[in-house]
Amino acid sequence: MIQQENRSHFKFELVHTDRNCGARAGIITTPRGVIETPIFMPVGTHGAIKALQPQVLEEMKIPIILSNTYHLNLSPGPAIIKKAGGLHKFMGWNKPILTDSGGFQVFSLKDRKITEEGAQFKSPDGEQVVLTPEKSIEIQQCLGSDIMMAFDECIPHPATKQYTKKSIQRTHRWLDRCINSWSNPQQSLFGIIQGSSFEQLREECVQEVCSRDLPGYAIGGVSVGEGPELMEQVVSYTAPIMPKDRPRYVMGVGNPEDLLMIWEYGIDMSDCIIPTKFARGGTLFTNRGKLRIRHRKMRGDLYPVEPNCNCYTCKNFSRSYLKHLFDANEVLGAILTSTHNIAFYNHLARRARQAIIQDRFLDFKREFLSRYQQ
Amino acid sequence: MIQQENRSHFKFELVHTDRNCGARAGIITTPRGVIETPIFMPVGTHGAIKALQPQVLEEMKIPIILSNTYHLNLSPGPAIIKKAGGLHKFMGWNKPILTDSGGFQVFSLKDRKITEEGAQFKSPDGEQVVLTPEKSIEIQQCLGSDIMMAFDECIPHPATKQYTKKSIQRTHRWLDRCINSWSNPQQSLFGIIQGSSFEQLREECVQEVCSRDLPGYAIGGVSVGEGPELMEQVVSYTAPIMPKDRPRYVMGVGNPEDLLMIWEYGIDMSDCIIPTKFARGGTLFTNRGKLRIRHRKMRGDLYPVEPNCNCYTCKNFSRSYLKHLFDANEVLGAILTSTHNIAFYNHLARRARQAIIQDRFLDFKREFLSRYQQ
Repeated sequence: MIQQENRSHFKFELVHTDRNCGARAGIITTPRGVIETPIFMPVGTHGAIKALQPQVLEEMKIPIILSNTYHLNLSPGPAIIKKAGGLHKFMGWNKPILTDSGGFQVFSLKDRKITEEGAQFKSPDGEQVVLTPEKSIEIQQCLGSDIMMAFDECIPHPATKQYTKKSIQRTHRWLDRCINSWSNPQQSLFGIIQGSSFEQLREECVQEVCSRDLPGYAIGGVSVGEGPELMEQVVSYTAPIMPKDRPRYVMGVGNPEDLLMIWEYGIDMSDCIIPTKFARGGTLFTNRGKLRIRHRKMRGDLYPVEPNCNCYTCKNFSRSYLKHLFDANEVLGAILTSTHNIAFYNHLARRARQAIIQDRFLDFKREFLSRYQQ
Repeated sequence: MIQQENRSHFKFELVHTDRNCGARAGIITTPRGVIETPIFMPVGTHGAIKALQPQVLEEMKIPIILSNTYHLNLSPGPAIIKKAGGLHKFMGWNKPILTDSGGFQVFSLKDRKITEEGAQFKSPDGEQVVLTPEKSIEIQQCLGSDIMMAFDECIPHPATKQYTKKSIQRTHRWLDRCINSWSNPQQSLFGIIQGSSFEQLREECVQEVCSRDLPGYAIGGVSVGEGPELMEQVVSYTAPIMPKDRPRYVMGVGNPEDLLMIWEYGIDMSDCIIPTKFARGGTLFTNRGKLRIRHRKMRGDLYPVEPNCNCYTCKNFSRSYLKHLFDANEVLGAILTSTHNIAFYNHLARRARQAIIQDRFLDFKREFLSRYQQ
C-alpha cells in the first residue's frame, strides 16, 4: 500500500460547489497533467480511441482518457506494453490515463465463475483465465495508468439483497488485496462503491470503501441496464455521502442527459463509449439533439453539424459531405463524426464547469435540455 | 477553348534535367498552389483520401491530390458539389486537385457501349448513364478541379492495331470536343496520349494531342494490366517525344520501382491507389522493402516502421502497436499505416527531385533499389 505521505503526485482540489445544488468544479493534479472537473473521459478500449489519432484528442485538449485492462490483458498483453515503456508510450498519448480493473468486462461474460480468490473465465480463444485483485493491479501497474481502479464484482441488475450483501463484503476484501498490491506511488488507486439498488447497502459500501482513505472513489454498477431512473436514484443517495475532498467517478455514463444528472449530484468524472460508438453509426450530438447524418435530408445540407462548434469537423465540413462519406463507406466519415462527438462531450463538461463556478448549473442544465430535447 | 493568353494561372517551369538521363525537376504553378515535380498524387476517389483527414495531408505537405469524376458524378453528384462551392470546399482541401475524366472507370465496366457520341453504361443502381466529352468537362468544371483530364477511351490490353487506330482517332475528336467545352481559365486541361503498345500509334498520338497546345499531357493506358515491361516500353518511347515545356503525367502508376522508372524517362506526375490500399491491408513501404505489419514477428517489435522516417506514425508508434491495432480491428491501424505510406511516397518524390537537381538520379535509383529489393 502507498501511504498517504507518499501520494503527493495526486491531488484533488475542490474549487467550487454550486450554491443551488451538489454540482462541483474541481482540479485533479496527476504527474502527467491537470484535469479540470467535471470531466468526461473518452474510452480507448484497446489502447486506442476508436478512429482517432492521439493528436486529434490533443488538439481538442482532452485531458484524460480511459482504457480497458481486460482487453489489453488479452491482447497484446501486459508484458509487451511494459516492454514498450507503458501504455502511454505504446499508444502515443502522454496525458493521464485511467484504467478500469477488468471487473466490469469479466462480469458481463456468461461463463464466469466467482470465488473468494477472484474470477475465472474463458478468453475468446478458449483459454482459462483467472483474474484476481492482485493480478488486476499487477496488470494495471504494467500498463502504468495514472489512475487504477480496484477489482470489484459489478453486480448484475436485478440482484437480491442477500446476494448483494455477500458480494460487497467480498468486494471489500478484494479492495484490501488491491491496496496491498499497489506499489507504484506515481499511480493512484480508486475504490469502487457497489451495493446494487439498495440504499442501505450503498451506504455501507461508502462507509467501508472510503474508510480506506484512497485518492478517489467510484460509484459502480449503475450502467448495467437498470435505466436512467434507477441510475439517478442510486447516484442521488450515494454521491452526497461520499467524501467531499476526493474525486467522485460514475463508471460507464452516458448520454448528455445522464451527464447533467450526475454532475448535479456532485459527480466529477465519468466515461462512456456512447460518443464514439454513436459517431461510427452516423449519430451526432448537437445542442439541438441528436442528428442522424445518414438521413436523406442531409444530402444537400451545406451547414456544419453544429454551426457554432469549434471542432475540426464543424470548421471544415458540411453535413452534406459527411453524409456523402457514409454513403460511400469512407472511413473518414467515422473519423470526422467521432471528432465532433468527442469535442461535443468535452465542451459540454467545460460549459458545465463554467456554470458551476457561476452558481448557475441548474439554469444551464434546464436551458441545455430545453434545446436538446425539443 | 481557353486561349493561350488567358492561361497565365497555370505555369510549368522546367528547373533542371539530369545530365545522365531524362529525369527532370520542375515547378507547376496553379492558382491554388505550387507543385514541385516529380510528384506523386494520392488518390481520393470519392473526394476523400481513404482514412485520412485533409489536415494530415497538409501536415505532410502533400501539394496535390487526385479525385475521380466517375465516382463523384454518381454520388453525391456535381450539382451538390457545385452548390457547396466546388470540390475543394466540399472536401476541406484548399490545395490543387486533379480530376480524371471518368474514362478509365467507364472503360473498365463490362456493360459499356462506345459510340461517336460518348460512352453509355449502367450506374450501380441500374440507371443508364451517358458520359460524353462535353459532359465530362461540364462535371469537372462543376467540381472546380485545378487540372482536368480530357475524356478519352482507355484501350484495354491487348488490343489490335486496327482497333487502336480507330479508337485514337475518336479520342482525338473527343479531345477537340473537350477543348471546346473548356470555359474556365482557372482550370487547366490536360490531353491524353493513348495508342496501346504500338510505338507508331503512340507517336501519332503525341503529334495529334500535343498539336492542341494544352497546359499538360498524360500518357494513358499503361496501367491496364500489361505488366511493368510493357509499361516501361511505352513510356520509354513516348515520354522523350512529348513537349519539354509541358508537364508529363503517367496515369495510375504505381509501385516505388515503377515511379523510379517513369521519372528516369522524364515523367513529372503520377497517381496510384497503391500506397493507401496497401496500407489498409497492413503493408507498409520502407527503404528496405515492404513490411507486413500483421506478421507475428511484429508482435514485440518496438521499432517504428521506418527508423528515420519523419511521419506522424513513425515518430509516435511502434510496429508492435500497429500490429496490435490490426489484430484488434482498430481503424486507427489503417489511419496510421496510410499516413506512413503517403509520407513515404511523397518523400521518395522529394528525394528523387533532389537527386535530379544534383545530376545523380541514376545513382539514387540504383542505391534505392539495392536496399528496397534486397
